[in-house]
Amino acid sequence: MSKDENINSLLEKTKIGEIINICLKDDTTIIGRLMPRYEYGKEDHIVIKLQNGYNVGLKIEKIKSIKTSVSDLGNNTSIRDNDNIRSTNVGNSNIIKLKSDLPQILLLSTGGTIASTIDYRTGGVTPVLSAQDLYNSVPELSEYAKIDTEILINEYSENIGPKEWHLIISKIIAKINLGIYNGIIISHGTDTMSYTASALSFALQNIPIPVILVGAQRSSDRPSSDSSSNLISAVIFASQFKYSGIFVVMHASMSDDLIACHIGTRVRKNHTSKRDAFQSIDMYPIATIDKNQIFMNDKTISCISLNERSLQLEKNKLKLQTIPSKFDDRVFLLKYYPGFNPKLIEYVTNNGYKIIIIEGTGLGHLNKNCLYHLKNAIASGVLVFMTSQCIWGRTSLTVYDTGRDLIKIGVIPLSNMLSETAVVKAMWLLANENNSDSILNKMQQNISNEIIPISHILI
Amino acid sequence: MSKDENINSLLEKTKIGEIINICLKDDTTIIGRLMPRYEYGKEDHIVIKLQNGYNVGLKIEKIKSIKTSVSDLGNNTSIRDNDNIRSTNVGNSNIIKLKSDLPQILLLSTGGTIASTIDYRTGGVTPVLSAQDLYNSVPELSEYAKIDTEILINEYSENIGPKEWHLIISKIIAKINLGIYNGIIISHGTDTMSYTASALSFALQNIPIPVILVGAQRSSDRPSSDSSSNLISAVIFASQFKYSGIFVVMHASMSDDLIACHIGTRVRKNHTSKRDAFQSIDMYPIATIDKNQIFMNDKTISCISLNERSLQLEKNKLKLQTIPSKFDDRVFLLKYYPGFNPKLIEYVTNNGYKIIIIEGTGLGHLNKNCLYHLKNAIASGVLVFMTSQCIWGRTSLTVYDTGRDLIKIGVIPLSNMLSETAVVKAMWLLANENNSDSILNKMQQNISNEIIPISHILI
Repeated sequence: MSKDENINSLLEKTKIGEIINICLKDDTTIIGRLMPRYEYGKEDHIVIKLQNGYNVGLKIEKIKSIKTSVSDLGNNTSIRDNDNIRSTNVGNSNIIKLKSDLPQILLLSTGGTIASTIDYRTGGVTPVLSAQDLYNSVPELSEYAKIDTEILINEYSENIGPKEWHLIISKIIAKINLGIYNGIIISHGTDTMSYTASALSFALQNIPIPVILVGAQRSSDRPSSDSSSNLISAVIFASQFKYSGIFVVMHASMSDDLIACHIGTRVRKNHTSKRDAFQSIDMYPIATIDKNQIFMNDKTISCISLNERSLQLEKNKLKLQTIPSKFDDRVFLLKYYPGFNPKLIEYVTNNGYKIIIIEGTGLGHLNKNCLYHLKNAIASGVLVFMTSQCIWGRTSLTVYDTGRDLIKIGVIPLSNMLSETAVVKAMWLLANENNSDSILNKMQQNISNEIIPISHILI
Repeated sequence: MSKDENINSLLEKTKIGEIINICLKDDTTIIGRLMPRYEYGKEDHIVIKLQNGYNVGLKIEKIKSIKTSVSDLGNNTSIRDNDNIRSTNVGNSNIIKLKSDLPQILLLSTGGTIASTIDYRTGGVTPVLSAQDLYNSVPELSEYAKIDTEILINEYSENIGPKEWHLIISKIIAKINLGIYNGIIISHGTDTMSYTASALSFALQNIPIPVILVGAQRSSDRPSSDSSSNLISAVIFASQFKYSGIFVVMHASMSDDLIACHIGTRVRKNHTSKRDAFQSIDMYPIATIDKNQIFMNDKTISCISLNERSLQLEKNKLKLQTIPSKFDDRVFLLKYYPGFNPKLIEYVTNNGYKIIIIEGTGLGHLNKNCLYHLKNAIASGVLVFMTSQCIWGRTSLTVYDTGRDLIKIGVIPLSNMLSETAVVKAMWLLANENNSDSILNKMQQNISNEIIPISHILI
């Protein structure tokens, strides 16, 4: 029996959740609980939960020896629940005493990484922390605001769409009509956060207070988690920010202390996993927060439309009663690519879609073999708009004759509106406007900073 | 009759192409040819072509007086051709004497802005300059190389796709088999340049010399045109660069002198109109050229796979005879968005598509309501791959249970391959591989730096 086989056989006898003492071949000693590998994990390693709550993966070939039946794991607060181990490091849940003059903030949780911890059944990250848990886990929040928390939905953000946007908006309206909140925070998975931010931006144009969407790129029990710093900044923005509207607050750089506040319709997740994944497009963030202090970017703010927050909370009820808060998903996002088969446009036309957003190349182009099908689609009453897959910059269909051909058949360029924002705006107008002309007009009008005039481009 | 009406009536009498002397209300004087407004131009202004070849737009309300029948327009070389005015400032087309020991470069023109001048009939930009014209217009090129030029196609790049890639590749193979070229330059519209660069990168993996794609964001008779500096840099790279392969050479910054060289599979047009629109994704450009001198980024180069250029040009013929140079366009690029109707996946499956590239959210996710349809698609033999709409970063389907569900049904994540590159690679494998297993395997293998190992990420 080789040494590795010996260790494998020892590991097989060890129960998941049992505390073990591991000595590596380089004589490092690690004490922690044996965790199950997740379903698709590699077979040549094990996962150990350390006493500080973090997980480490260890290659079995690096292990010299294992001692089982170890009892000392310090202050790790683990509980055994049938066959599952669930371990939390959310801190002390005693009630924290608050100063009486703090602003009142509502924290609505929708799920996502900011509200997640490791699910030890699968080894993956699933949303299990309630907003209340989060409040307990980040006691610094008590310096800035009195926070009510509520779990509204509990979904990964890739499962959040038009129906959930309506639900979130309705809840926000109901809560604002209580007349007590200085700001609202929505914790949200980062994957589709910018789409939800756009949805809220269109439906809640006249909102009297700031609504901040916040998330985390790393879950709260990973060493590099950004969930507490993002959340603290969100609370500071929600309670102190001078302007009302829909904003996204996320890490601005690799630095722990620098957080950015983005306009809801102009932000994009531009990295799969970096903490500073979110970027304002074609402009700088409107503010940053550095070591818990807000720095306004006055030049950016002077170039866009923002309302000051209302100080008379109780007076705001009426304004919000006739909010168009529904979304109609008969909108198709078509990202053009070379080799694209234009017959798809026929399918879209014949299957109930009412609006096509084309993510064209460059200034807003696509192969001339699409013209015939687009013309037919438009003749059938489908509205066709053009954005650019370049992301930065703006469409212009008057520079090249291909573009002018598109204009001639009725394709409408959307300037520097992001394609993701355009999809959401189209769904919102489709549900709330009476006729095509009105949709056509409003798609081209700037409603919530989704189109920045040419002279305002800062980057 | 008001002054403005007076000017309008004078303008109406002036023929397009006539030289006029305009005095503005601020007493500036402008002499130039009256140009036609393009079809969708605003009615309140006119366009004047100055003697230096550039166009200016003037608001009619700013004009104090106009003198017609002016004859002095300096050295502007205009010709009248029926009702059209075509004005070129391409310089002297005399034959330039070359040193005998210069490298031999082939410049293949495919159209696009770098090969364009203003079409004065419409005011738009259409490709009319041949590669020979470009060579004559940028005499500096004669310091670096003996250049043969050939117009291969003449298309806006949005009209370039699988068929044209095959044509370009065939032409490159034929030209390389002449055994005389040290490098090849392809002038190409910028819109789909990165797609074409990917296509060439897969088909021409063992190419013995560098092939440089180059374009311009601004046409060659606009004051801020980048066409000559990009072209000079392309010639320098093609003749001096140490490595073979497919590269994109475009402006790196707002500075006139700094040009970047990007790997063909890792570059993206990230701005509709800025000169420095092209960026290497998840890495730095492999080289820059500053004031006509190449600076290698040795750290980047050490992280990727590159072949040194071959110095024995005549020996390279055989290698290129069995190149898989076809592309099969039965590939569907699906950009996921909230509200996406998964029935589209059925359409794609039932209409002959063989491969779906999903541009998912974040690490590679989409709504759980797509799972059923994707499972059916895969059961029908469609191959499904996952990239991320974040652009930067890499997919990972093992972090969250949604991702693991996707793996379970057979969705294959493509790491940090760009979705645009993935579409092209899929079209190439589909045309040239015998069976699905081989396509599945090769999609996940790094062939031409389209997947960079995790430890090599530099940004």
